[in-house]
Amino acid sequence: MASIIGTWRMSYEPVRAAYEMLCSGTSAADAVEYAVSEVERNPVFTSVGLGGLPARDGEVYLDAGWMDGNSLRCGAVMAVRNVSSPVRAARMLCGRKKNWLLCGSGAERFAASAGIPMREMLTEEARAKWLEAKEPAEEGHDTVCVIARDDSGRMVVGTSTSGLFMKEPGRVGDTPIVGSGFYCDAGAGGAAATGLGEEIMRGCLSYAAVSYMRQGKDAQTAAELAVSMFRLQLAGRGEDPEGISLITMDASGNTGAASTLESFPFAVGNAMYEAVLRNGRVTILMRNPEEIPFG
Amino acid sequence: MASIIGTWRMSYEPVRAAYEMLCSGTSAADAVEYAVSEVERNPVFTSVGLGGLPARDGEVYLDAGWMDGNSLRCGAVMAVRNVSSPVRAARMLCGRKKNWLLCGSGAERFAASAGIPMREMLTEEARAKWLEAKEPAEEGHDTVCVIARDDSGRMVVGTSTSGLFMKEPGRVGDTPIVGSGFYCDAGAGGAAATGLGEEIMRGCLSYAAVSYMRQGKDAQTAAELAVSMFRLQLAGRGEDPEGISLITMDASGNTGAASTLESFPFAVGNAMYEAVLRNGRVTILMRNPEEIPFG
Repeated sequence: MASIIGTWRMSYEPVRAAYEMLCSGTSAADAVEYAVSEVERNPVFTSVGLGGLPARDGEVYLDAGWMDGNSLRCGAVMAVRNVSSPVRAARMLCGRKKNWLLCGSGAERFAASAGIPMREMLTEEARAKWLEAKEPAEEGHDTVCVIARDDSGRMVVGTSTSGLFMKEPGRVGDTPIVGSGFYCDAGAGGAAATGLGEEIMRGCLSYAAVSYMRQGKDAQTAAELAVSMFRLQLAGRGEDPEGISLITMDASGNTGAASTLESFPFAVGNAMYEAVLRNGRVTILMRNPEEIPFG
Repeated sequence: MASIIGTWRMSYEPVRAAYEMLCSGTSAADAVEYAVSEVERNPVFTSVGLGGLPARDGEVYLDAGWMDGNSLRCGAVMAVRNVSSPVRAARMLCGRKKNWLLCGSGAERFAASAGIPMREMLTEEARAKWLEAKEPAEEGHDTVCVIARDDSGRMVVGTSTSGLFMKEPGRVGDTPIVGSGFYCDAGAGGAAATGLGEEIMRGCLSYAAVSYMRQGKDAQTAAELAVSMFRLQLAGRGEDPEGISLITMDASGNTGAASTLESFPFAVGNAMYEAVLRNGRVTILMRNPEEIPFG
């Protein structure tokens, strides 16, 4: 079964188009790259790619991750500047046996030498917001994450973000970190996370969700278990997560989502949904995309 | 029970000294920082800290990770130059709610501003080896990893490496990546990995081992299960890991180790051991440290 899921309202149109591509025979990898890079190139979204909000020093540093669920191979770039499509760089690193996780100028050199167009990713609008910011706000962690399965059973996950607004230069969140921001095993399922990366990494949430699917849980149960078990672990330490959300897909293409937010929008195939938290339980509701705000 | 475990022969003397410190009331955190930083400052070891072998560009880039098993908080630095003790920088980042995973010059600025002495970490010996290397050798992945538990039940894990010799500048392995290079939950146990980071990350091996301890497995079984289950997953893809080793400690201070190598040396308390692979089974043997080669 061809299937695709993406985080937030911003992924709705790209995921819908990628779903049609999948249904017409496009591979999971091409569908994921298409959907994530469409979000990256849209300057309206201030937490991914072009138009992403800068770090404290006024520079836009981007992170992206990629995992092929059939080979368990990965690629990722961290804290790169001027790379027009970080997810493309991550995909191009996937398949390497070594040196597939690169940061900073090393990752930028790889992207440039691989032929990825380089450009300034700071927009006038993002720069204006930075000039206004008086102190570290560290807001905005709407990462785009897309998981797809094609009819041949290939599964891929891709992620991309500009990270926290006003982050410390060099700061990296969960998005390019395998196991935390993403994980995919085509024999069991895939998962990807969005929210405060520093919290997500403490629970390796994507790996945790896939582990539940490896144990036979369905995608929705796996997403809920990963979030709720981590929440319990933090609660035992007197902490409550600020905001973490998870999307999942099992090996058959069934999807799931869970969040600590009251409502977490995500796209599946050609439709828009919300994971709504009521009395501690997650309910998945189909929604009209026109009524869901961006960001 | 005070307990401490460290990877490779190089950690034997530091772990033995740290064990005495633990028995005299030193905290797990201070014991781990002591043991790891002793290896970092020893120029004889070419895969950690001072004397570490450089990347292709002749520069020494260092990675380190830290996790407090009681709070589940972490800190880590990636691809830093001139930081005399990367593990100290990782420890100092632990406790932050945000911006605790830093790479490159941002991480170097943090370390310098935190008062960590900065110095050239490339030795004449390491530079000579680099001058001799004709092409990417990508050898040497002997990461120092130390897990300790003190009598009050505090548990900490720390890791440090210079990564692969002749790596691509900006390359990061598993060492600073929570879940892959290290993980610790004082309620269940801790784990840390050494070997080819790019393989370890594909299996989130440290998180996997701790998950088994959360399910009630003892430290030795958890280490063996994490390695063997990952090996099975790779075998299903026609791959065999080049070399991965894992150390574990459960919440009571019992330790374990497993490896895909024929023999993997590690230190526990004041003694030296080897995990020996025979007919696919791991046997733990106490060894005379004088008879175990460094590196």
